[in-house]
Amino acid sequence: MVNAILLISCCDQRGITAAVSNFIAVHQGNIEHADQHIDHQKEIFLMRIEWALKDFSVPKEKIPQEFLSIAKRFAMSWDIYFTDDIPRVAIFVSKPLHCLYDLLLRQKYTQICCEIPLIVSNHPDARDVAQNFNIPFHEFFIDKENKCDQEQKQMELLRKAKIDLVVLARYQQILTPQFVAEFKNRIINIHHSFLPAFVGANPYAQAYQKGVKIIGTTSHYVSEKLDEGPIIEQDTVRVSHRDSLQDLILKGEDLERMVLSRALRWHLARKILCYGNKTVIFD
Amino acid sequence: MVNAILLISCCDQRGITAAVSNFIAVHQGNIEHADQHIDHQKEIFLMRIEWALKDFSVPKEKIPQEFLSIAKRFAMSWDIYFTDDIPRVAIFVSKPLHCLYDLLLRQKYTQICCEIPLIVSNHPDARDVAQNFNIPFHEFFIDKENKCDQEQKQMELLRKAKIDLVVLARYQQILTPQFVAEFKNRIINIHHSFLPAFVGANPYAQAYQKGVKIIGTTSHYVSEKLDEGPIIEQDTVRVSHRDSLQDLILKGEDLERMVLSRALRWHLARKILCYGNKTVIFD
Amino acid sequence: MVNAILLISCCDQRGITAAVSNFIAVHQGNIEHADQHIDHQKEIFLMRIEWALKDFSVPKEKIPQEFLSIAKRFAMSWDIYFTDDIPRVAIFVSKPLHCLYDLLLRQKYTQICCEIPLIVSNHPDARDVAQNFNIPFHEFFIDKENKCDQEQKQMELLRKAKIDLVVLARYQQILTPQFVAEFKNRIINIHHSFLPAFVGANPYAQAYQKGVKIIGTTSHYVSEKLDEGPIIEQDTVRVSHRDSLQDLILKGEDLERMVLSRALRWHLARKILCYGNKTVIFD
Amino acid sequence: MVNAILLISCCDQRGITAAVSNFIAVHQGNIEHADQHIDHQKEIFLMRIEWALKDFSVPKEKIPQEFLSIAKRFAMSWDIYFTDDIPRVAIFVSKPLHCLYDLLLRQKYTQICCEIPLIVSNHPDARDVAQNFNIPFHEFFIDKENKCDQEQKQMELLRKAKIDLVVLARYQQILTPQFVAEFKNRIINIHHSFLPAFVGANPYAQAYQKGVKIIGTTSHYVSEKLDEGPIIEQDTVRVSHRDSLQDLILKGEDLERMVLSRALRWHLARKILCYGNKTVIFD
Repeated sequence: MVNAILLISCCDQRGITAAVSNFIAVHQGNIEHADQHIDHQKEIFLMRIEWALKDFSVPKEKIPQEFLSIAKRFAMSWDIYFTDDIPRVAIFVSKPLHCLYDLLLRQKYTQICCEIPLIVSNHPDARDVAQNFNIPFHEFFIDKENKCDQEQKQMELLRKAKIDLVVLARYQQILTPQFVAEFKNRIINIHHSFLPAFVGANPYAQAYQKGVKIIGTTSHYVSEKLDEGPIIEQDTVRVSHRDSLQDLILKGEDLERMVLSRALRWHLARKILCYGNKTVIFD
Repeated sequence: MVNAILLISCCDQRGITAAVSNFIAVHQGNIEHADQHIDHQKEIFLMRIEWALKDFSVPKEKIPQEFLSIAKRFAMSWDIYFTDDIPRVAIFVSKPLHCLYDLLLRQKYTQICCEIPLIVSNHPDARDVAQNFNIPFHEFFIDKENKCDQEQKQMELLRKAKIDLVVLARYQQILTPQFVAEFKNRIINIHHSFLPAFVGANPYAQAYQKGVKIIGTTSHYVSEKLDEGPIIEQDTVRVSHRDSLQDLILKGEDLERMVLSRALRWHLARKILCYGNKTVIFD
Repeated sequence: MVNAILLISCCDQRGITAAVSNFIAVHQGNIEHADQHIDHQKEIFLMRIEWALKDFSVPKEKIPQEFLSIAKRFAMSWDIYFTDDIPRVAIFVSKPLHCLYDLLLRQKYTQICCEIPLIVSNHPDARDVAQNFNIPFHEFFIDKENKCDQEQKQMELLRKAKIDLVVLARYQQILTPQFVAEFKNRIINIHHSFLPAFVGANPYAQAYQKGVKIIGTTSHYVSEKLDEGPIIEQDTVRVSHRDSLQDLILKGEDLERMVLSRALRWHLARKILCYGNKTVIFD
Repeated sequence: MVNAILLISCCDQRGITAAVSNFIAVHQGNIEHADQHIDHQKEIFLMRIEWALKDFSVPKEKIPQEFLSIAKRFAMSWDIYFTDDIPRVAIFVSKPLHCLYDLLLRQKYTQICCEIPLIVSNHPDARDVAQNFNIPFHEFFIDKENKCDQEQKQMELLRKAKIDLVVLARYQQILTPQFVAEFKNRIINIHHSFLPAFVGANPYAQAYQKGVKIIGTTSHYVSEKLDEGPIIEQDTVRVSHRDSLQDLILKGEDLERMVLSRALRWHLARKILCYGNKTVIFD
């Protein structure tokens, strides 16, 4: 039961929906999900359409070629995905392990659909967890001097393992622009504050100091500017003067788990379209 | 800048989206919003599509006729609306006036787009508010004996005023099946609990008695069964042992205002499709 | 049925609760609410205690004098309030009127307990609303040159009217340090963002631009630094790519109403204690 | 650094707070947390007070005896706990393992402070997880005929292991009144709906059928009536027509984890007082 998923963005014009849905209909495809969005300010059209390949008269591998003329007519940016291609995800983690554990359990119980061929860390703490789930663990000790070299080795590792997506599950290192460029819109980070509030280090301590009444968490694609890439998902929880800094961390970690897993699930289901510095989530 | 809005439901089949979007494209219409949903359990297809009539080659009044062949082909249930037809809304209210006040203010400041030609009540309390906003006020004293007669007069009044939608903004009378039938899926109620919990009278007192940690509010279409019609919108707020019954009411009234106004706004923007006893909100 | 309310802060020491509750017990007072908080980081003790004056053996006006020895023993900062002293509140407003309307309705229906002897604005827009509620309206046209003079006149007006508290219900002028100093911790502002995110002008436009998935609102005491005073209350609501800037404003205004009214209600019920740049809410 | 915690309930009277805080002060105790609540409807006084035993002049084991005269004077129901007594918790689980996994991880990372000497199940599914965390696993196959016998054996097991608290982490068996009586207010259940809505089996399917816009989860003490014991904690999450039944389960399980862990954490920290069929949470 394989489906095809088309993600499209282009200038808003007459006839796009008709052209795309005709393409599917004339080849006997049955649409299972279709969603579109028009940014009326910027006159941009965005679409996600998913259809069953059962009975579809174009073989899977020829679909891109067949679709090309429509794509050209509307000057589309587009991608096509198939639900039997399981994405390969590398998890990067430092010392806090709650997000790592959560992702591994969700993958084990098929709540997120991906392969996890490797875990990378700049500390040894996650080694036991990785072993527990039978996933190869790669430790890269990082200091100021070896940072570039170590990142080169990490990138080499990712290329060899044909990694599609990098998840920073509380990885406390800033990636170089080169790394970010190679995985443009394919690195998902979890930042433990309600961005753009409390950028940078120790956001819970910043929030406690400030006396906010609500804390939050943000999952976003990594761009060259720290904590400024396109936001995928956020969530918040109420705190009060009764909550110590430790309580903030505890409440926040529950948010982190949920927010990161939602972002990852949407990415894997090809429900996210980036444009400008924003995301559209076709949930 | 008039738009047309089509609401469609039918059995899920190949080619529906293509047929509808072609219809719009060949007549030079530009789609501004399109959303669809397939209930895979019941194999039902539901769609809302909105397009600009500027440059559309079929005159407004002939659109239904032109669309008929497509509708027949797929055995659609369908409705078409135009954004320059302003719905006429009657508000029914009893003693608590917070929802009434809220709706009148939102209409005044154009947050909800409708005419409000009359207010109906079984008590005199709302008379001053109605006068304040220059809206005719109709009081119908109701007891067990005159209930049917009074409702007949209310229905007569609504017919004469060409009312499209009735909003029960905390109206404490149960409508007869005859009234409900005449305004099927055109009566919106606000029930001050998280349905299906706490059906019937005094839901805040029931919630207080039960010791719940969260209270809620539900806006729904009125059906023949009390508090059981299709749910449009719900919201909840946290309470604690520190909250008295009076505090619950205070917090709840804030929810009621928001939930009822959202439900009304969606209905007026033709964003709601009912099927079975559920709603789809194309927001 | 008058109650007395003591608000206390001092260094954390042994015996404070015993001393205060003894003071009430030996004079036949019955405690109705008592709450305390210890900031273990800063070793600060904070307390709110409310008791019935019925049967209390010290007459109301002599209570401060009688309490003085305890206050001195523990080097307390303290205030005493009586529930039959109704605070006098001035509302400042500019063009958006939703918060003003909301506060006036809540006061009318006794959800907030205060007198509102006057409304101040730098625009004429609120005049009709003020008249509608029979409240004197004072317009002060403000430009760069007359700002200081006009503020002097405003302060004179507040002094004559014996105003206890100023509420900035979407007042788009920055107050001078002199004004702020005269009403230290007695000016409540509503800022239409989740502070510290989106300080300054047009926070909804900033949030829309940034592509956040949640927007918020903050009510805080006004300090000399813009949008940086002690936070009283915050709330958030989910948004998506489907929400236009106008939708953000609509959703945000619902939050503003609720958050400002909660902050005001807590202040009037003497439930807020400020220390450092934070608040404790004894709710 | 051991603390003592007193939980008190009695009729509301003059002088209770003074008497209790004096008792602590005269013996050189330093109060770290104190909270009280008066149910003004039922005239019940409830209190939680926690103080450091460092420098306290009464030895730990003699405190109950010393406090007795105060307790008698006010006819108190009371319990005293010490923070160095680590509660012993038995987890009961059936097939879904997400709550079990979550509790074990939180205990491992010291987010909840208890010992977990055993896991009980009516299915073999949890055996691997238990082994993974080195916790003895006891399987009791249960059918209609052996139910009473098996429960007798379970109770024997709990007695031998000196279990203080039973957590039903998605345990799909109804306990007998005898079991419930032996652990009165010491069995915590997680029910996967917003009680009192959707009592009994398959609450997510019930919610999906009903078309609610929000789903919830409830943690409560188990009483003789199914799903009707005192509610400890609830939480809710928004759903829409886009969510399948499977999506509801996925979203709900995130709530279940959080709500059950909060309830357990509060119980272990002795922050919960039951009275009537309600709880007071001194958080």
